Amino acid sequence: MNRKYIIAIDLGGTNLKVALLDLQYKIKDKEIMGTRSFLEKDELISGIIHAINRVIKYNNLDKTDILGIGLGLPGPVDAKSGIVHFFPNIPGWREVPLRDILKNRIGLPVFLDNDAKIMALAEHRLGSAKGLNNVLCMTLGTGIGGGIIIGGKLYRGFNNAAGEVGHLPINEHGSSCNCGRTGCLEAYIGNNKIIKDARKEFKRNISLEELSMLAARGNKRAIKIWRKVGRRLGFALAGVVNLLNLDAIVMGGGVANAGRTLFDSTKESLKKQAMNVHGSHVKIFKAKLGNNAGLIGAAIVVKEGLIS
Amino acid sequence: MNRKYIIAIDLGGTNLKVALLDLQYKIKDKEIMGTRSFLEKDELISGIIHAINRVIKYNNLDKTDILGIGLGLPGPVDAKSGIVHFFPNIPGWREVPLRDILKNRIGLPVFLDNDAKIMALAEHRLGSAKGLNNVLCMTLGTGIGGGIIIGGKLYRGFNNAAGEVGHLPINEHGSSCNCGRTGCLEAYIGNNKIIKDARKEFKRNISLEELSMLAARGNKRAIKIWRKVGRRLGFALAGVVNLLNLDAIVMGGGVANAGRTLFDSTKESLKKQAMNVHGSHVKIFKAKLGNNAGLIGAAIVVKEGLIS
Repeated sequence: MNRKYIIAIDLGGTNLKVALLDLQYKIKDKEIMGTRSFLEKDELISGIIHAINRVIKYNNLDKTDILGIGLGLPGPVDAKSGIVHFFPNIPGWREVPLRDILKNRIGLPVFLDNDAKIMALAEHRLGSAKGLNNVLCMTLGTGIGGGIIIGGKLYRGFNNAAGEVGHLPINEHGSSCNCGRTGCLEAYIGNNKIIKDARKEFKRNISLEELSMLAARGNKRAIKIWRKVGRRLGFALAGVVNLLNLDAIVMGGGVANAGRTLFDSTKESLKKQAMNVHGSHVKIFKAKLGNNAGLIGAAIVVKEGLIS
Repeated sequence: MNRKYIIAIDLGGTNLKVALLDLQYKIKDKEIMGTRSFLEKDELISGIIHAINRVIKYNNLDKTDILGIGLGLPGPVDAKSGIVHFFPNIPGWREVPLRDILKNRIGLPVFLDNDAKIMALAEHRLGSAKGLNNVLCMTLGTGIGGGIIIGGKLYRGFNNAAGEVGHLPINEHGSSCNCGRTGCLEAYIGNNKIIKDARKEFKRNISLEELSMLAARGNKRAIKIWRKVGRRLGFALAGVVNLLNLDAIVMGGGVANAGRTLFDSTKESLKKQAMNVHGSHVKIFKAKLGNNAGLIGAAIVVKEGLIS
């Protein structure tokens, strides 16, 4: 077998990353572009194809060196049929048969999946959840996504839509969520809400990074905000843990960089609210693969789809 | 193969049922005793053994006709090691190696599992959830139990403790639950809470059966109570459905006999709170096997454990 590389693509609302990985998932080359520089759907598809061809050429490779192309995508997709249903943060995509389009234009096998699922897969195969059976991996950012591993395999649910942990409701008469419903976790601990709370507390604009730094230095107001986030996150996760009796929860995404204050208060709140047997067993880890989780996961999807 | 029968035992806080089933899970004979007539753990174990021997003898059978013994038990058990951790409603049981005790005294293969899991298995193999992949089965009674089917198989979680749907929290600052935590679903829609609400509304004692009958006849106060139960149940289930993207939810137990008012308001509330793709797909069914689900499930555990 001569095909020794995989091309992985991590498409986000902000950045489009294209990378070359070897079959041990080492990143050999990476290119990052702004997603918004491609105004139309067709431009974005062409941009992806040009980047793939560039990465092959710049590394003195040929298409026959490439095992396949894997894509992690920011929205609901059908991994089986290769169709993108839509992207919440990139306009103009609706029921696009992206896998077949790319396959026809590049002539290589193409695999795609939702980014939160891809991240969960990467953390399970190579990251914090390695070797564990039943795990929830969360991305904590503007939105809160999730991927579930059951029995060591990615769990998809009926429409490949499982894992929407951001839309666990935690208050019957609670805050309105972007999704149009009531009291969802995301309405309480999404990026925007945290930044809003911080602005109120500090009477100025303050970034998540600064808020984390302040908490690390012992600033009481910053600690108070992160503790509130952790309390709510732990409360919601207690329900998940009581339901699924998980081995571990892995937290990634920008908010997960908040540091110990957040992790400690999440654990404390989870243990207080979960049943004993469920709460005492489950571990909470920080995601290990960081910003590369999407690329690594996309490469895993290709290799596992074609070889193992 | 000459062993054509299975003996199934369904132990509850109130009743101990012992039945003879054939390999197609038809109930051939059944005996029901009061669990509380056995005062001690050892008496209860002897009572089970006597009942097994009686059912064999009364049906003119021999131990060599029996494939095995299956038990559905009202509390956390380790199905693998055959150990009962404890029973919340039957005192005196703690870390009892019940499978080995019975196996040694009867000389037949013994299988045991938690009753909610056994009910889920029965509904999946022969009842409302037949042929479906991903399902939550709930028992709605004094307590609210659950069993989860994932990919057509019983999902256990790390400690065989998955499925505690009664302890999904639905309000951060909500009612106290029997489990000692805050805002659990069970604190809102367990038997006792419904009966308490009904007593308040009707200014007299009123049973669940009467409350269901009144609702079926159009009594507005009864309908109001059941609608409130359904609203909360649907709200909690929306979280489960967003997380697991289920095919169906099966509701059994006394409260599930409340009739259409309860089912309609549960569905309405679930669809309102769940995300579109998740809420529009999931079906809500009434459990089909009724009071025999426990016996049938216990027999399935034996047959699947030994043959298929």
